[in-house]
Amino acid sequence: MAKDIATRDADYSQWYNDLVIKGGLADYSSVRGCMVIKPYGFAIWEKMRDALDAMFKETGHVNAYFPLFIPKSFLSKEAAHVEGFAKECAVVTHYRLKNDPNGKGVIVDPEAKLEEELIVRPTSETIIWNSYKNWIQSYRDLPLLINQWANVVRWEMRTRLFLRTAEFLWQEGHTAHSTPQEAVEETERMLEVYAKFAEEWMALPVIKGKKTANERFAGAEDTYCIEAMMQDGQALQAGTSHFLGQNFAKAFDVQFLNKEGKQEFVWATSWGVSTRLIGALIMAHSDDDGLVLPPKLAPLQVVIVPIYKGAEDLQKLYDKVEPLLKELKAKGISVKFDDDETKRPGFKFAEYELRGVPVRLALGMRDLENGTVEVARRDTKEKSSQTFEGIGVYIENLLQDIQQNIFNKANDFRNSNIREVNSWEEFTNTIENGKGFLSAHWDGTPETEEKIKELTKATIRCIPLNNKQEEGICVYSGKPSKERVIFAKAY
Amino acid sequence: MAKDIATRDADYSQWYNDLVIKGGLADYSSVRGCMVIKPYGFAIWEKMRDALDAMFKETGHVNAYFPLFIPKSFLSKEAAHVEGFAKECAVVTHYRLKNDPNGKGVIVDPEAKLEEELIVRPTSETIIWNSYKNWIQSYRDLPLLINQWANVVRWEMRTRLFLRTAEFLWQEGHTAHSTPQEAVEETERMLEVYAKFAEEWMALPVIKGKKTANERFAGAEDTYCIEAMMQDGQALQAGTSHFLGQNFAKAFDVQFLNKEGKQEFVWATSWGVSTRLIGALIMAHSDDDGLVLPPKLAPLQVVIVPIYKGAEDLQKLYDKVEPLLKELKAKGISVKFDDDETKRPGFKFAEYELRGVPVRLALGMRDLENGTVEVARRDTKEKSSQTFEGIGVYIENLLQDIQQNIFNKANDFRNSNIREVNSWEEFTNTIENGKGFLSAHWDGTPETEEKIKELTKATIRCIPLNNKQEEGICVYSGKPSKERVIFAKAY
Repeated sequence: MAKDIATRDADYSQWYNDLVIKGGLADYSSVRGCMVIKPYGFAIWEKMRDALDAMFKETGHVNAYFPLFIPKSFLSKEAAHVEGFAKECAVVTHYRLKNDPNGKGVIVDPEAKLEEELIVRPTSETIIWNSYKNWIQSYRDLPLLINQWANVVRWEMRTRLFLRTAEFLWQEGHTAHSTPQEAVEETERMLEVYAKFAEEWMALPVIKGKKTANERFAGAEDTYCIEAMMQDGQALQAGTSHFLGQNFAKAFDVQFLNKEGKQEFVWATSWGVSTRLIGALIMAHSDDDGLVLPPKLAPLQVVIVPIYKGAEDLQKLYDKVEPLLKELKAKGISVKFDDDETKRPGFKFAEYELRGVPVRLALGMRDLENGTVEVARRDTKEKSSQTFEGIGVYIENLLQDIQQNIFNKANDFRNSNIREVNSWEEFTNTIENGKGFLSAHWDGTPETEEKIKELTKATIRCIPLNNKQEEGICVYSGKPSKERVIFAKAY
Repeated sequence: MAKDIATRDADYSQWYNDLVIKGGLADYSSVRGCMVIKPYGFAIWEKMRDALDAMFKETGHVNAYFPLFIPKSFLSKEAAHVEGFAKECAVVTHYRLKNDPNGKGVIVDPEAKLEEELIVRPTSETIIWNSYKNWIQSYRDLPLLINQWANVVRWEMRTRLFLRTAEFLWQEGHTAHSTPQEAVEETERMLEVYAKFAEEWMALPVIKGKKTANERFAGAEDTYCIEAMMQDGQALQAGTSHFLGQNFAKAFDVQFLNKEGKQEFVWATSWGVSTRLIGALIMAHSDDDGLVLPPKLAPLQVVIVPIYKGAEDLQKLYDKVEPLLKELKAKGISVKFDDDETKRPGFKFAEYELRGVPVRLALGMRDLENGTVEVARRDTKEKSSQTFEGIGVYIENLLQDIQQNIFNKANDFRNSNIREVNSWEEFTNTIENGKGFLSAHWDGTPETEEKIKELTKATIRCIPLNNKQEEGICVYSGKPSKERVIFAKAY
């Protein structure tokens, strides 16, 4: 099998697209900016969703479902929100088609025009707070801890598979609280959930921080985020959690009777991650031979390729392997015995490499005689001959090793590519010639932030949580600063 | 707690709405025809989805995700399909809003008009077969067994919570095969899956059958369905499975190289069930006190209400119950110990009755002394005092009994409300004065079917599978007939 994928060095961007398309994760569609998530890619999303959903439920959240459509006027109710979201979106203006009187296909029926246009949700704060108004009367109705798994649409002009598409899948949590303290705690709790998920499931180290005012969610008082480093050194925002203050409660007049018997506006949070995480997963770990998937999110964890001639040998190999298949399945490990006769072992090896299956076993007639099996791990590409006896336990441990190793590798790469810079010359040199994150002093003004972005394309990814406080001067303006922030170019 | 719900006899329709709203399953939204599925209702949907998804995967299917939007021209490609689906649908015509130059809110930007309008999917055959064209080249690529969980929109003029809403959630399977036999087998296999799910999970007996040509899915060669009877005797179509022949393959030019080396059009099926099933579940089993939910789909299966005065007694009751909570959870049974001090036991009893929690335990100080506990089952409303010792196993068995009893009750009701009628007078009398399904001879023509519908509002629900063949004469036309079909008014 000729893989025919670009190398990272030659063309990072093409390499990424090749992995998505040739790895069978997704496909382009005939609708501008919309992608098809193919079964192999969707299986990764299902694993992400199930893991996150369990974590949300453990922290007291329940799921619900709100309408796809938002009346246009709702978007205008929160001043900052409308600026951020009411621009590039899909607008439903009519509710009927009719046969073209000229005889060809169908046309929009001009008589079926909506009185008020509907927007396909770009995010659901407005439609949800419009419902919360009816659900919340007293402090007894709080907190309200609701999550939704849904599709959303933002009419992006430049799209990239998984990373930026017009339609994408995500979850959005929307919670309501009786005090600002409780809402801030919730915002931070969910950031922790995201960080834990990224590190333990995706094997992706992240920096937890707050966004600057410029980069905040439209309508938030504070936006927390997790930022990850891709192999080209660029940043990818992997999840956000917003403290919304009373902004949406005021916009939709959601008040509650507090314990003191007074009416008060409700405090809110929202938080979300999306199918963009699949893009992060691919970019963080994969290599020039294809996908490298952490075992916890790999749709198929182990593949067994028999090396044989003729049906009799195949049967012998299968008889040997059958108890192992059962043992692995009983351990909750997904495994496939690939006896497809139409493909050669070498072709299969390359295919499973491309698809990022963490562990590959190969078993031939000599192995049967010797009581051995060849084990290849995808992350390091190491091969070794192992005793077949006890191989189930060996594989179980190996999968854990691989999960940890993928994390360590990404973590080492990330740590060695965060550079402290202390002058404008150092800043611009590093941005132009190096890769990775810059840790630099900034004077705290939006003007300087904008200027730096304009000159270098680097943005402030976040102000890390529990940031070391140190006196310094802004790399651009020379004004005083009390802490370093993280700059990077970003996806 | 004053439940304040209508009775079935007084106002069946209001009774249904009361259960949905007051039972906390769903709410109206500000978007015409769209509902909010509240956490309790969504928890039922999650259980349905998980059970069905496991059954789909067991039968070899995988999930994927296709775009929400369909280019308008796609709908016209299959002649019958466009007639059925290209009428009442949400049409996206623009992709941007802008600030109103008159200063108030936002307006649609006339310059951001799409070249071709996009339709919010009412069903996804067209967009999916447009992708299948790229995925299928040879018989080796077949069968393709893909399912999608998604939201769809049909601009219904008269909506009812769960039963008929503009937006609803569903799953749609779309499979591709190399022979018509294999596609028909798949169509029938998925009908069996639906019937099994309805009977074993929803405790809902169904009649499996085929639709007449009039009632077929737009674009299908054959539509199979399962039909259930609600407590008012009306029919509710609970799931459909379509043999699509080569219609969509021809419309989207999807050909494959068969084993003989010849190009051939692909054979197709599609099949789906939706959140409408929640409506069926409510209507089939509930009573004038509220929801009656089969244990397998109840979000909460067991509730324990302590009867006490003061914190000390409560602690004693909790200490007694704690091992039981652990035991039930270990058995996979969901259970809640309701120690909410702000509500009285009587209020709680009524609330859990309204919400259809299958088993309620009440435990007071006297029970502690006697080693007993009061057990109330929701389906029959029987209460009994049971020995506390061994109550975990008792509950486990009781939940199975309740599941079976709910099915039996619905099954008896259904069977005693299917009536054979043999003349037009009998037919119209029964439709007007009775309730339920009519089993009657029909001459097989669409004209007669239409006429009967016009005169009585009854439609042919299905021609049952494995139907008894018997000579007879059509109740309306008097022409000869070879089998009876099922007529009913339907949701």
